[in-house]
Order: sequence, then C-alpha cells, then structure tokens
Amino acid sequence: MIEHVALGIDIGGTNTAYGLVNRKGEVLFEDSIVTTDYQDPESLVEKIYNDVKENGYLESLLGLGVGAPNGNTFTGNIEFAPNLKWKGVIPIAELFEQKFHRPTLLANDANAAAIGEHLFGNAKDLNDFVLITLGTGLGSGIFIDGELIVGSQGFAGEFGHVRVVQNGRLCGCGRNGCLETYVSSTGVVRSVNELESIHKADSTLTKKSKVSAKEVFLAANSGDQFACEIVEYTAEILGNALADFAAFSNPKAYLLFGGLAQSGAYFSEKVKKYMEENLLKIYQGNIEIRNSALHDMNAAVLGTAAAMFWKAIKK
Amino acid sequence: MIEHVALGIDIGGTNTAYGLVNRKGEVLFEDSIVTTDYQDPESLVEKIYNDVKENGYLESLLGLGVGAPNGNTFTGNIEFAPNLKWKGVIPIAELFEQKFHRPTLLANDANAAAIGEHLFGNAKDLNDFVLITLGTGLGSGIFIDGELIVGSQGFAGEFGHVRVVQNGRLCGCGRNGCLETYVSSTGVVRSVNELESIHKADSTLTKKSKVSAKEVFLAANSGDQFACEIVEYTAEILGNALADFAAFSNPKAYLLFGGLAQSGAYFSEKVKKYMEENLLKIYQGNIEIRNSALHDMNAAVLGTAAAMFWKAIKK
Repeated sequence: MIEHVALGIDIGGTNTAYGLVNRKGEVLFEDSIVTTDYQDPESLVEKIYNDVKENGYLESLLGLGVGAPNGNTFTGNIEFAPNLKWKGVIPIAELFEQKFHRPTLLANDANAAAIGEHLFGNAKDLNDFVLITLGTGLGSGIFIDGELIVGSQGFAGEFGHVRVVQNGRLCGCGRNGCLETYVSSTGVVRSVNELESIHKADSTLTKKSKVSAKEVFLAANSGDQFACEIVEYTAEILGNALADFAAFSNPKAYLLFGGLAQSGAYFSEKVKKYMEENLLKIYQGNIEIRNSALHDMNAAVLGTAAAMFWKAIKK
Repeated sequence: MIEHVALGIDIGGTNTAYGLVNRKGEVLFEDSIVTTDYQDPESLVEKIYNDVKENGYLESLLGLGVGAPNGNTFTGNIEFAPNLKWKGVIPIAELFEQKFHRPTLLANDANAAAIGEHLFGNAKDLNDFVLITLGTGLGSGIFIDGELIVGSQGFAGEFGHVRVVQNGRLCGCGRNGCLETYVSSTGVVRSVNELESIHKADSTLTKKSKVSAKEVFLAANSGDQFACEIVEYTAEILGNALADFAAFSNPKAYLLFGGLAQSGAYFSEKVKKYMEENLLKIYQGNIEIRNSALHDMNAAVLGTAAAMFWKAIKK
C-alpha cells in the first residue's frame, strides 16, 4: 500500500523550507531554498514542484499546507506582506493548486508554527499560549482554550506591528516603531547601525561591511561589549512588549521560535527578566517563557502539513 | 407561581449599581450607591442585602451575578484592583453568598458588560468584538468566535494597563503610561491639571477647584477650546491604542461603553478617525467603532445576571 504524504511549505522572508510528512508526523524528505532568489511566486512554485516530482513523491501526495507571512487562511492569499519582495495580493494557494492539482491550505507562518508546537513540540501541555516567531520579521500564533485564534479577517496575531517606540524606526508597513523593527533578525542588524555606544568603535561588528543577527549573538557570546548591549536592548524591548501583550489573553506561556530564539537559553532568560519586571502584579510569576522545542524548518513544515491533515479529516 | 429573579451587581470605582432581573432579561428593580461611601466590602454587601429584603425580593431570588474591576471568575475574588479603595484580595463572592445564602458568580466588570451587549445590546450580531469600558478606569471584554475570553488565570482583557506613553503618567498599578491614566474619567480629569495649552487660562475648566470628566465633555460641546483639546487628546490616545490592539484578535468591532462613551457620537467618531489613520493596512476599513446600546447600569446588571443564568443552566 502506498504511504500518503502531505507537502508542508514554509515561505519566509529569507528562506523557504519544504518537506514531505506522513500521517505520523515523520518528515520523509526536506529541503530549503532562498526565497529572494525567485523573482515571482510562480517560479518558486515551479522549483518546489520539480523537486517533489524528481524525488518521486508526486503520486503519494494528498495535499499541501503552506505557511507564509500575512498568509490568509480564508482567502488563500498572501496579502501585503512587508517582508516579502512579492508585493500586493498573491493567490499563493491557487498557484500551488494549479501546479500540483492537490488541495492546498494556507496559514500564517506563525500560526503554522504554533500548530506544530502544540502538536509535536514544547506546547503540547498548553491550551493558552502565544508563540512568537523571531525571523526576518516578528509574528505570533495565539492559542486560547486549545484553539488557534484567526480573527474576523484571518489576521489575528500581528504582534510584529504593535508599535512599541513612539516615533521609532520606520517599518516596512509604513508606520513607525513597530516591534519587528527592533526584535527580529533585520531589527538586530538595524541596531548595529543605529545604536550608539562607547564600545561601538572597538566592536568586531563594525569591522565588517555586512553583519547578520546570528553574528551579533555569536559576538555577544564571545564577550563583545557592543554586541552584548544590542542583545540586552533587544531582550528589553521584547520583554517589555510581552509584559503588555499579556493583558490581552492572559496566556500561560510565551514560546520563542526562530533564529533569535535559537541563540541559546540566555536570550530567553533576559527576555523573561524584563517581562517579569514590567508585568502587571496579577500576572507576575504566572507566565512562562519557553524556547521552541523544534528546529525552525521542521516545526513549520510539520505544522502546516498537520494543519492540512486536520482540515482534511474534518471535511 | 413565583417569578424567579437574579440579582445583578456592578461594583465600580465610583458607583455600585444593582438590579433584579427575571429570566426574560427584564429589570424589575434597580438602584445605585456610591462605592466609596463604604469603608469595607462587608458594609456594602449589608446595604444591598437590606435593600433587596425591604423590597420583598429575597424569596424569589435564585442567585447573584457580580461584576467588579479585577473580579476573577475562577476564584470569586477581587484581586488587587487599582481603582477600588479596598486593597488586596477580597473574597467578594463568598461575602455575598454568606449574606444571601444563594450561589454567587463573579465576573470582571468589563466581561459582564460584554456579555450584556452580546445578549441584549449592540453586539448581538457580532462574534468577534472587544468591548472597552470607559469609567473610573478602562477595562475590556473580549469575544472571539462568540465566546468570552477569560485567560489562564481569569485576567484576560486588562487593556487599561497596556502602556501607551513611555515614562508616562503614574498608574494605580505602580507602572507608568498605562492607557487608563489617559483614557478614563480620572484620566480626563488628570489631563485638565497636567496638559498645557494657550487656551488653558481662558477655560471654564480651570475656574473651578474640582472638575469631572462629564464637565470636560460638556465644556467641549459648548466650544471651550481647552476642553476641545482634551477631548481630542483623549480620542487620539484611545484611537492609537485601538489600532495596535487590533493586531491581537483582529476584531470586527470595538464597542465603547460607559461614561465617556455616552458623551455623544462625536467622541467615537474622533476615536475612529485616529484608529483608522494608525491601523495596519490589512485592517483598514474593516473594524467598526460602535457605542454601547445599553445604559451603563442596565447593561452591567443584565450582563452579570445573565452570565449567572447561563452558568446555572449549564450545570
């Protein structure tokens, strides 16, 4: 008997990961490509199609689950995603369906990750949590009473665009001071350029023409003072923001997911310290900060695929 | 046959309203007292008990529903309410039960109001909305998919304590810049004292030793320039905050409820304008602002009583 699989695809601002997952949640095949290498979404769809076909999985494929920034479950469209170079409204689910001739479910990337953590990861024991994705941008997936919140238009959980600094950094969304302009891989890189410090001139970070968020965290681990200040600044802004976000759903935990969260436990400990200092008294000591249990790509791939299975089973 | 009633009680920072409601939602009797006249919660419970008894409703009383700031449904306690002079943890449900010998359900005051609007008011057609109470403080009741959100500890929707101004006004909660220090009846009165304006010296507001939020709105209606500036300032801060709150649950509407909301449609129109200017593109044109349909007291009383009926029926 043929083993059926689902194709999970996680479209990110920088990379796109995809993998084939069976009903048990086992990843049979996975790969990653650079999103920005593809001028239009059609060519990215084409590339993934060819890869799946060449690896012999086309026959056993039941359907697709796609996670993408500003991905709208209701419409199947990516709508005005500030962190993708494909602008406007992109009918991404339709593009995949036309190419693969399989049902395709679209989810916000952070929602897909939250579903993955709830099914297989560090949120298995939680009914009320908020997952925060720290990637090119910052997103969130919100679970309340064991259910994912999608919102009246399908756009719940846009925490990256809560403004946390008055007249702050210009965001891709056109507004100023959005959380993701500070707390994301691009935000950390902006901090290298925009923050002033007496340690800046001595820092290894300012010796290079281009630096990544990962390099900032590595430099901080090596004792680079300016890098340490940036990590502290980033943790302080995130901790403060999480303290205020708690006032919405009063979650049991925040899960930190993605690049910055993988920089080690010390980042989440700093975030926890700043959050705790700024929480309303009634929440103090009651909200955990956890790191994601799953590798970035796996979680998203599993999450989107699982979401699709769920929907399929419900029908 | 005796007609059974529920006693709904809305404990506010300034006034406490209570009323007897039958199963049809009809208010048979209602009254209001000044909360701050009661040194301890026991004396307030005593007063309401005597009133219900004297009016002959004790025999037909099935149970009580209480709405209060920081009222926790899970514990039956009012916990650290910044806007009540009774401090710490108050076992309010237990106090009412001991006096009345009837089951008593406690709800956050804003949650009670949201239930009331959803049952009888301007949110009857809505499954996804956030009710904002503008009273002594600022609270919120959040409906998602037709269900009230209570949170892991029972403290969801503490929007009044989201910090909207960096290093802003000192709040009763001990933190700075909380929304309710600007947008509430006490916040508006603070604006009279703290804001500077070239129109301040000429304003009728500065001629009195004490002024209420209602007087500020009346003065603005009469063309008092300083009063107009305060109304504009208050609407701008609220509109801005609502724009960011939308990023959580992506609601279909906000309902404005309580003292400030009753100052006429023009306040909510100003709030709408500022919200719209500051919304993320994907939300623009998709979120309504409505005023409460119900008189303050009625809605809260009906809401709490109805909540109690619901719970009773479910058991």
